[in-house]
Amino acid sequence: MSENSTKKMKPWVYWLLFAITFIVVFIIGMLTASIMERRTETVARVDLVRNLPEYEPRNEVWGENFPRQYESYLKTLDTSFRSPYMGSAHIDYLEEYPELVVMWAGYAFSREYNQGRGHAYAVTDVRNILRTGGIEWSPQPATCWTCKSTDVPRLMKKVGVAEFYSKKFTDFGSEVVNPIGCQDCHDPKTMNLRITRPALTEALSRRGFDIKNATHQEMRSLVCAQCHVEYYFQKPTNYLTFPWDKGFSAEEMEAYYDEMNYYDWIHPLSKAKMLKAQHPDYELYMTGIHAQRGVACADCHMPYKVEGGSKFTDHHVRSPLANIANSCQVCHRESEKQLMEDVVSRQNKVMELRRLAEKSIAAAHIEAQKAWEAGATEQEMEPILKLIRSAQWRWDWVAAANGVGFHAPVEALRILGTSIQRAEQARGMLQVVFVRHNVPIPVKLPDVSTKELAQKYIGLDMDKARKDKENFLRTVVPEWDRIAKERQGTLMKYEYKR
Amino acid sequence: MSENSTKKMKPWVYWLLFAITFIVVFIIGMLTASIMERRTETVARVDLVRNLPEYEPRNEVWGENFPRQYESYLKTLDTSFRSPYMGSAHIDYLEEYPELVVMWAGYAFSREYNQGRGHAYAVTDVRNILRTGGIEWSPQPATCWTCKSTDVPRLMKKVGVAEFYSKKFTDFGSEVVNPIGCQDCHDPKTMNLRITRPALTEALSRRGFDIKNATHQEMRSLVCAQCHVEYYFQKPTNYLTFPWDKGFSAEEMEAYYDEMNYYDWIHPLSKAKMLKAQHPDYELYMTGIHAQRGVACADCHMPYKVEGGSKFTDHHVRSPLANIANSCQVCHRESEKQLMEDVVSRQNKVMELRRLAEKSIAAAHIEAQKAWEAGATEQEMEPILKLIRSAQWRWDWVAAANGVGFHAPVEALRILGTSIQRAEQARGMLQVVFVRHNVPIPVKLPDVSTKELAQKYIGLDMDKARKDKENFLRTVVPEWDRIAKERQGTLMKYEYKR
Repeated sequence: MSENSTKKMKPWVYWLLFAITFIVVFIIGMLTASIMERRTETVARVDLVRNLPEYEPRNEVWGENFPRQYESYLKTLDTSFRSPYMGSAHIDYLEEYPELVVMWAGYAFSREYNQGRGHAYAVTDVRNILRTGGIEWSPQPATCWTCKSTDVPRLMKKVGVAEFYSKKFTDFGSEVVNPIGCQDCHDPKTMNLRITRPALTEALSRRGFDIKNATHQEMRSLVCAQCHVEYYFQKPTNYLTFPWDKGFSAEEMEAYYDEMNYYDWIHPLSKAKMLKAQHPDYELYMTGIHAQRGVACADCHMPYKVEGGSKFTDHHVRSPLANIANSCQVCHRESEKQLMEDVVSRQNKVMELRRLAEKSIAAAHIEAQKAWEAGATEQEMEPILKLIRSAQWRWDWVAAANGVGFHAPVEALRILGTSIQRAEQARGMLQVVFVRHNVPIPVKLPDVSTKELAQKYIGLDMDKARKDKENFLRTVVPEWDRIAKERQGTLMKYEYKR
Repeated sequence: MSENSTKKMKPWVYWLLFAITFIVVFIIGMLTASIMERRTETVARVDLVRNLPEYEPRNEVWGENFPRQYESYLKTLDTSFRSPYMGSAHIDYLEEYPELVVMWAGYAFSREYNQGRGHAYAVTDVRNILRTGGIEWSPQPATCWTCKSTDVPRLMKKVGVAEFYSKKFTDFGSEVVNPIGCQDCHDPKTMNLRITRPALTEALSRRGFDIKNATHQEMRSLVCAQCHVEYYFQKPTNYLTFPWDKGFSAEEMEAYYDEMNYYDWIHPLSKAKMLKAQHPDYELYMTGIHAQRGVACADCHMPYKVEGGSKFTDHHVRSPLANIANSCQVCHRESEKQLMEDVVSRQNKVMELRRLAEKSIAAAHIEAQKAWEAGATEQEMEPILKLIRSAQWRWDWVAAANGVGFHAPVEALRILGTSIQRAEQARGMLQVVFVRHNVPIPVKLPDVSTKELAQKYIGLDMDKARKDKENFLRTVVPEWDRIAKERQGTLMKYEYKR
């Protein structure tokens, strides 16, 4: 019996083993299938609803093919996020830091300068800002549209690149209506990243780099570098140019400008030949640890996102601080609170030196004005004005970049240190001029402690500027929109798939 | 037959399954045992060869109990490592940066200031350095010994803490003979970390922190903070004191000193009441990311090491750059080359602002001297001298700390930025003084471009100083050593275990 029962056990054990094996293999199979499925979803191309032409400016049309990306892009309209410095709070910088009004006297930035809002506001905001003027005063070239709209590549193809730049801002009001969006960075056939603005390609080419050789990861920053860089409008045709020929650092760009005796404007108070830095985000970022570790702009500002079973790039381009869990925490294992504190502590230190520089430079402009009034000679003033130009350029190179220096705090502070030195040197020399010309020192500086006081001091008629803008927005802009709407249906041809 | 053969197969399969299970379990067991064994080795206390008294200064005696730690400690004698800035190269800083001679005119640092060598050289180097003088000129108090030797806690216990500080440097020449070592940081009974220098305990206590509540990880930095901090000799008894009452930042310590009208010396050229910062490594480190992430001094400067099967703390205290694999790479997954570059790139930027500050401050001292000579008044000079004092303090707060700012590059650059501002402001005001007193500007500055020229300019008789030191080393020091050797056998009592 016992022998029998042992023998009877055996098939039962086999079945058990078989069943366990079956279950385990089945579960592994299911897991594998699940992994494969997710991978498939990730790499799958959606069936295109439409075939898109080479330059389709309308984001909503792209959105029919790529609803998830488009819907996340639309969230750039959300301006609710606020951090101690960044986010979409639409800060009035001139209100916050009235010294800037003095520093930009004679330049459009002294009229209005706000925290940038999301990409979807680009056309609205460039129309609304006092810098682009109105009907009576409308100083800007068409070059100002370059980074604002998906219509630009289409127009450049239509009229020619140099011709586009050489027009006036108002010449393209009815053509440039779609804000920054899909086709600025994507090839409509392959969805690969694509450079659509020639200035970047040209600048890199002058440095011996063919953009076609850029890796995908490099492209995830380079598409941003089409606009988030330092640039200038080359005279006389306002040809958009990146001053990268000598290198990407503040010093190398300064040497580039100095060598060609370039200046953006002559400061009406100090008479210094000034440079305006234009958000050199990419250049500053390149000197920082994130770039050095191969992190692209998109890794933090457009991190991957999962919806349903689908993983895609979040096109809600924004401050990573508004999205720490998906951006920073992919690599950093600290808490959101801790990471926010880490960022803000660096920004606080950068801001401290920035403010020192701003106060010194603004004072230097006014003191230079007083020196001229006291009869200072060109010879006396020349080295002073050079220092002011250099100090403000270096300050602006940090201040104009987004992120309050966080893209590379060490480099930002280094540059600010040299800015402060130049500003104080200029002020020191100005004191000597005063003494030589029998002006009692310290010279009494005017009260420019608010935006209004500062704008009044530099002689701006803000009521007039605002009224002009209101007229423009009431009469000109609706006409632009009307023409654009009429044309929209026939502008592009679509081949419907279904 | 077929049924029979199936039945015969079954035991064979069982045996196979059994054998596989046996082998797998055996291997797992072996692995577990190996892991357990290593853990045991890690936590095991060695059998003590000797029982040590409360204050045993001789490192070689501790070494009998802890040969691995002692042998690694002895490697601090190795000065072969060189990095672009750090390491044990024994750089002559005055040769390298002659501005320092001018900045420290009237203060012993203008005589000789070298890159620190390993802990094992502490007594040798403090005897050799020209700052401690010789026979004719011997200005230092016994307080200077505090951080140099394991004999200090023993002496403090013997004579009293305040009494120790109030003596002269030469009073303890024959008592202080063993360099920084084991008992400075360890309790001889438990091997736990222990604070042996009262200044740290006192400073933290004034801030409401009882050192007894420090965690082990905190202690792995605090034992270093016994010496690697800012301190001053409180007058009139030269009581070693850390100026932490208002906080740890450069500004808070400056406010502390300003409030008590403290100065280390009056600068003979500018007449400014100067502060000398003393390697505030711990304070600067606390503002950096490593401290914020809970990394202790010992984690990088004394990382764990495995020899045989035994894991222990490497007592070869040194630059982590000499040991990247065991320090940085425990957390950072970049190559040694990359990590070295990352460190040096930050140091380069800190050094750039440091040099700007040094050149400005040295020039300001000399210009202030010229201003006095030209008949400047106390009233004219007072604000200038305050700026020079503040600029040099802030520069020194960064420059005196080890690591060329790497412990916290962002904070280092912030402080240097404010230093540069103050120095340039002072120089600007000095130009005004010159003009007012009819001195042609720019004032011609003397050639102080080498250590020799600078030392000559500030009126140092270096030949005399060196000769005095030679006499001292030839006659006094051997006598100290003779007495120490005679006493050594009876100084401590040991209970031999075997």
